[in-house]
Amino acid sequence: MTPSFAFELQQEDGQARRGRLVLPHGIVETPAFMPVGTRGAIKGLTIDQVLALNPDIILANTYHLHLRPGDVLVGEFGGLHQFMGWPRPILTDSGGYQVFSLASRRRLSEEGVVFQSHIDGRALSLSPESAVDIQARLGSDIAMIFDECPAWPATSEQVEASMERTLRWARRGREHFLKVSAGQVPGVTSSTPGQVQFGIVQGGTYLPLRDRSAAGTVAVGFDAYAIGGLSVGEPTDVMYEVVAHTASQLPTHLPRYLMGAGMPDDLVECVARGIDMFDCVLPTRNARNGQLFTRHGPIAIKNAKFARDASPPDPDCACATCQRHSRAYLRHLFMAGEMSAAALNTVHNLHFYLDTMKAIRKAIESGTFSAFRREFHATYSRRPSE
Amino acid sequence: MTPSFAFELQQEDGQARRGRLVLPHGIVETPAFMPVGTRGAIKGLTIDQVLALNPDIILANTYHLHLRPGDVLVGEFGGLHQFMGWPRPILTDSGGYQVFSLASRRRLSEEGVVFQSHIDGRALSLSPESAVDIQARLGSDIAMIFDECPAWPATSEQVEASMERTLRWARRGREHFLKVSAGQVPGVTSSTPGQVQFGIVQGGTYLPLRDRSAAGTVAVGFDAYAIGGLSVGEPTDVMYEVVAHTASQLPTHLPRYLMGAGMPDDLVECVARGIDMFDCVLPTRNARNGQLFTRHGPIAIKNAKFARDASPPDPDCACATCQRHSRAYLRHLFMAGEMSAAALNTVHNLHFYLDTMKAIRKAIESGTFSAFRREFHATYSRRPSE
Repeated sequence: MTPSFAFELQQEDGQARRGRLVLPHGIVETPAFMPVGTRGAIKGLTIDQVLALNPDIILANTYHLHLRPGDVLVGEFGGLHQFMGWPRPILTDSGGYQVFSLASRRRLSEEGVVFQSHIDGRALSLSPESAVDIQARLGSDIAMIFDECPAWPATSEQVEASMERTLRWARRGREHFLKVSAGQVPGVTSSTPGQVQFGIVQGGTYLPLRDRSAAGTVAVGFDAYAIGGLSVGEPTDVMYEVVAHTASQLPTHLPRYLMGAGMPDDLVECVARGIDMFDCVLPTRNARNGQLFTRHGPIAIKNAKFARDASPPDPDCACATCQRHSRAYLRHLFMAGEMSAAALNTVHNLHFYLDTMKAIRKAIESGTFSAFRREFHATYSRRPSE
Repeated sequence: MTPSFAFELQQEDGQARRGRLVLPHGIVETPAFMPVGTRGAIKGLTIDQVLALNPDIILANTYHLHLRPGDVLVGEFGGLHQFMGWPRPILTDSGGYQVFSLASRRRLSEEGVVFQSHIDGRALSLSPESAVDIQARLGSDIAMIFDECPAWPATSEQVEASMERTLRWARRGREHFLKVSAGQVPGVTSSTPGQVQFGIVQGGTYLPLRDRSAAGTVAVGFDAYAIGGLSVGEPTDVMYEVVAHTASQLPTHLPRYLMGAGMPDDLVECVARGIDMFDCVLPTRNARNGQLFTRHGPIAIKNAKFARDASPPDPDCACATCQRHSRAYLRHLFMAGEMSAAALNTVHNLHFYLDTMKAIRKAIESGTFSAFRREFHATYSRRPSE
């Protein structure tokens, strides 16, 4: 019988790792990028279009789905997979990121967080326990622990206090998750038997705090571990340093997920530091703003120089958008405010991200990741590789 | 050699006609519905999605494309087919409808119309001649004559004066079209050799004026004829009467195009009155507003009663949206303001329109159009058939 959760580390190349993650709804080849479908849809695309892009896993959001349409409703439909018509794995973040991004609309206490709904102002609370319940009803393959994502910059005292609370929440959340999984919490039915739970390491940019957070989180004992609290405004070099340091503190036999990162070169650099999973809104959000990623760096499609440019966004790209359309047409759609622009740009950007991950996986398999990394930077970021 | 324009009338059933229209970019099975792609895109969809819906022909707009990105630019790309990546026939309307819809932003004279751009206020003129030039550069398969679409209601004197001007414009526009087609107009190159031009019958709701307009327009000698100036606010019964009367004044061996109509039951009723071609923004626009057409009438997806409705929008529909999604999910996307809602709703509504046309064609082929018409109204509009 196939286990509903397993991680097979197939190959290493320096710190870069090629793996295979088995989840209840399917297999994720790592390193993997997870397109973001916050409210149960990848913005601008249909599920058929997402399937054609062929990601192994997508991400959805606990806070937003709890708010609307509600996890109880989604649970009645048999979970988010059935509700949105997505057959493959889903990871749900816990709402911890909204503690950061909706800072002006929430009150934090030891118990949890009370948000003022960004839709109608009504109060909405999330706690380590309720975040587990919500994600159980949503039935994601991977549930994230409820954490506190501190702002940057913050003093070490602030980050330490936050990190310690996240650890206390980790213990509560894990305990509750095990109860829910065992069917011991009345009124909470998991839509996906075999759902797993990832812990999240915090500690801001303070390496000693990262060490304590990693040790404490691993001691709780999760199915795997994520690095949170980055990509919140800190310099890229600092992020890379924290990623490298924190990854080295995490179990080698489990997948490591860097939350919320990043630009295409960040993916390459963080794989080089031992990361296996990524999610980021950049390819989708920037697509809607007219930024297209290409092998030679990003371009702003509204630029007047593209008005008569008959070449595709990226001449080396095999995506449906590049196969059919010119920069001139995409510029026209963007300037005219046509919704189709968002769809076509999103298809391209997600393809670029997923294709980059595929190239990364291939490079690791063949032991040529260093060369790939050098070459990628030479064409994409023109930044010297380390 | 296949001619670049031909109309083969294959079967008649009462006034309903089953035909086959040959155009430079392909064949159109009639009666046909043309999805509207005003600015070179069906709003919210990619070309791949439109192709999957399988319309034989789409419509684009002279006024909007002249304004942005400009017909000269489109001409440099080899025409609209190449520019937008759409391989099948295109009909371009002439800008005449904008004389009506942008009435507050235009000045009308015998020479033509000066519009104040709805984007930046700059002056923009359209005349019988320039509308030909623009459509030649766009390279549509079917170019429409530049006409004046009068408002409703209007006195018979107003409509008569407008209709007479439209006739004078028809003569100028046809003459100029023949010159452009013969390569005799310097600076104007047609992107589609074999482009044809349709005349437009006006005359409002006054049947004697319709007669004079039909006779005068046919006397000019176009490749085929359209009925304009309807679906502008007049009662449905009046529209049906004018359509029946005007269609009977048009050559039987040429396709008849009813511009801008209509609701699904209008399609059935106007086919019954001898119409072969339709275009309308309703399936696409209403999709974006959350109205979904079904065999049992339209539904408003935002209605609270659909919040937990696990059935597809239309249980009898084979479209990609109905195959994968519930009303509850579509309602969630619509309420959340997700762009994907527009795409999924548009796929459904266009499928419904195109599928209705397919059923109409099949009914005419088998000589059962009357029964189809009765049955359609019994389930869709619950309105007694005539």
